[in-house]
Amino acid sequence: MKIVDMRIHSIAIADPPLRSSYGLHAPYALRTILELESDDGVIGISETYGGEVPALSLEAIRLNVVGQDPYRLTGLLSSMVEGEGAGIDRSQTYLVPGENPLDQTTRTYAAIEVGCLDLIGKSVGRPVCDLIGGRVRDRIPFSAYPFFKHAGGGGEGDDLRGDEYGEVLTPEALVGEVKQMIDKYGFSSIKFKGGVLEPDLEIEAIKLLHQELGAEIPLRIDPNSAWTVDTSVRVGKALAKELSGGGYLEDPTAGLDNMAEVRKQLMAEGITTPLATNVAVTSFADIPRSLELDAVQIILCDHHYWGGMRQVRHLANLCKVFGIGLSMHSNSHLGVSLMAMAHVAAATPHLTYACDTHYPWQSEIDEVVAGGRVKIADGCVRIPDKPGLGVELDYDQLARGRQRYEKCPYRKRDDEAQMRKCIDPRWKRMLPRW
Amino acid sequence: MKIVDMRIHSIAIADPPLRSSYGLHAPYALRTILELESDDGVIGISETYGGEVPALSLEAIRLNVVGQDPYRLTGLLSSMVEGEGAGIDRSQTYLVPGENPLDQTTRTYAAIEVGCLDLIGKSVGRPVCDLIGGRVRDRIPFSAYPFFKHAGGGGEGDDLRGDEYGEVLTPEALVGEVKQMIDKYGFSSIKFKGGVLEPDLEIEAIKLLHQELGAEIPLRIDPNSAWTVDTSVRVGKALAKELSGGGYLEDPTAGLDNMAEVRKQLMAEGITTPLATNVAVTSFADIPRSLELDAVQIILCDHHYWGGMRQVRHLANLCKVFGIGLSMHSNSHLGVSLMAMAHVAAATPHLTYACDTHYPWQSEIDEVVAGGRVKIADGCVRIPDKPGLGVELDYDQLARGRQRYEKCPYRKRDDEAQMRKCIDPRWKRMLPRW
Repeated sequence: MKIVDMRIHSIAIADPPLRSSYGLHAPYALRTILELESDDGVIGISETYGGEVPALSLEAIRLNVVGQDPYRLTGLLSSMVEGEGAGIDRSQTYLVPGENPLDQTTRTYAAIEVGCLDLIGKSVGRPVCDLIGGRVRDRIPFSAYPFFKHAGGGGEGDDLRGDEYGEVLTPEALVGEVKQMIDKYGFSSIKFKGGVLEPDLEIEAIKLLHQELGAEIPLRIDPNSAWTVDTSVRVGKALAKELSGGGYLEDPTAGLDNMAEVRKQLMAEGITTPLATNVAVTSFADIPRSLELDAVQIILCDHHYWGGMRQVRHLANLCKVFGIGLSMHSNSHLGVSLMAMAHVAAATPHLTYACDTHYPWQSEIDEVVAGGRVKIADGCVRIPDKPGLGVELDYDQLARGRQRYEKCPYRKRDDEAQMRKCIDPRWKRMLPRW
Repeated sequence: MKIVDMRIHSIAIADPPLRSSYGLHAPYALRTILELESDDGVIGISETYGGEVPALSLEAIRLNVVGQDPYRLTGLLSSMVEGEGAGIDRSQTYLVPGENPLDQTTRTYAAIEVGCLDLIGKSVGRPVCDLIGGRVRDRIPFSAYPFFKHAGGGGEGDDLRGDEYGEVLTPEALVGEVKQMIDKYGFSSIKFKGGVLEPDLEIEAIKLLHQELGAEIPLRIDPNSAWTVDTSVRVGKALAKELSGGGYLEDPTAGLDNMAEVRKQLMAEGITTPLATNVAVTSFADIPRSLELDAVQIILCDHHYWGGMRQVRHLANLCKVFGIGLSMHSNSHLGVSLMAMAHVAAATPHLTYACDTHYPWQSEIDEVVAGGRVKIADGCVRIPDKPGLGVELDYDQLARGRQRYEKCPYRKRDDEAQMRKCIDPRWKRMLPRW
């Protein structure tokens, strides 16, 4: 089996005006859909970050991909994920995910790896999770992922989308948003994107969620490094009860040293709430120092930027060895990414938390998966009894995604610019803000 | 595809009277050959430690194996390798490899995993290395593995084998043995099994090897923990030049604390010779403390007891992250194990040393691989363009191995008993001896 064609589709998908410490989500999120076609006509697919650089980076290795055997390609390209050494600071604390030039290589590799695994799976009639070690679970739990948001459902002009959740800029509205999500998807854990309102309001939001949903629903808050060490400690103390029982405090503050200081101060008060991260530790090179400092007790893996599914498996094993928890990070994405996340989660014994997903924020109109959106029921994605990732492309939908991309005036994610454009012309991301 | 039969073959293979700090190799080494047959008649094979316990341990999970899909079985059984936590002392310093009850579970899992991978590879026409991430090399370098030995080629009674190397109990004879091995197999690195003669004689042996073979041949010495810290440091100092340039000092002394002390004292003298181990660190649970102490700079992986090929891939990744080198351990084995070692090595980018192998000590007469012994040329095993492990069983040879096993009076490896029987009735393994 040889790969005879590689097709790179840059698409845009409507995204609601979600807020975070990065700023504001633009009306469209950018994604890249990759197709690898074999000489016997089987097509492997994957989805990754969008815009110019991810597409160009894939294009740049076309000659290393086309003509190769998908079983061997991941070995041939392995220097793309093996090259990195310890001690290189790969932090993306100051960059939105997908815009960190230091992980472009591992992101490119991951897109190819997933495409190869889907191609292999489809070729031999096997789900991807059973190619990478074998599933340990069939149903993958995901978290509700509530955001503060302005009114609007994403899209622009004559492509404006409905606004399922309305404006959500108060703790009460946030609770309403979460209840809507739970009703619709059955989530049984919640990851709340903070770093937007005053910390006291976000403390209030978590307390309200805890009160309304009960202690059996684990709660996480992620202000994307918006807080000082002092604020982080203050929030950690205020929410000691609410974040216990399977919850965590994610990236309260910027950088490993500050995270370590927060941990130290909380532990000194007897507060064991674990600190999680998806920006202070984004590559294997970050891990030794993080362990040394006890800066992070949970790593959010993401096959998209950690270098693919097998690298996530390595990461999970490493985390287990050092007693570090493992959760999963997400970005705005469609069903191909969701299924890849589900497959790697299915084959990862040491995945100790429900995975994040932005999927509920995207809509059927943008889905490129044939047959429509992947179902999330009881908060879980089920591994279907289908080969590969278990999904195929709807080429009409893909074409519409490409058209949206063509019309879209930007080629990378810039939440800060969007914030200035729509909300406050003088807005700047500040770390720490509070 | 379902596994419809599992066949466990206990065999004995002739083994020459090799010496180590464990004692003396008995006339036969014990191995287990596993067959997993699928409903479409494909047979996956693997080889593991021999004797009663390994065979019984495999037998004990028969009901979890037969009826299962080989793609999924590794996931279903994953708790066998995922169960171990940090902090459990799994050292086999005081036990011969294969006789550590604490890694029986991972050894059993490994045998099943390799059998499944061979079955899958043979079913889809793909080499195993390309199923576990894709090969990064086609030719796997192995080391010459000289031992001090008594006269004799192994076997007993009317099954006595020829003695290719004769008695080797002096530094000069050892050099002759190595030259013979290099002439025959083309090895370009040497791992010398010490811990047998006075340390000064072993120092002399290494110096002679260095002098006769030149600095471009990396040299390792492994006394299997036979030395005190002081002796280890003394040898490390005496051989500072000879073990530099890709060589190492393997398990000079017993336990992580002593290893760490040797390292510290050598480093204080400016001697950077890395310390390697296959007994102080034999599982993931041993690693955090080893890192903390800087006790070990090179780990010898071995899929047979680390829990299979994918666990070795995880180990390799972890070693890379922490700047630890990776080599490969070996025991007396036949061609099935050799090919499994070669496949996992082929798919492991961070394998930083030539692998150990006892293979030259075994003979064509005992080989169960159809077509005869696997070729080692220019010191390397080449990954053949064949599915699975690239080897099939010769059932007549296998039957002869089973007959030898039946005749063999022992059911586990006991080098100490053999030493007492043949050389010195009062001999005891002593750590440290010198």
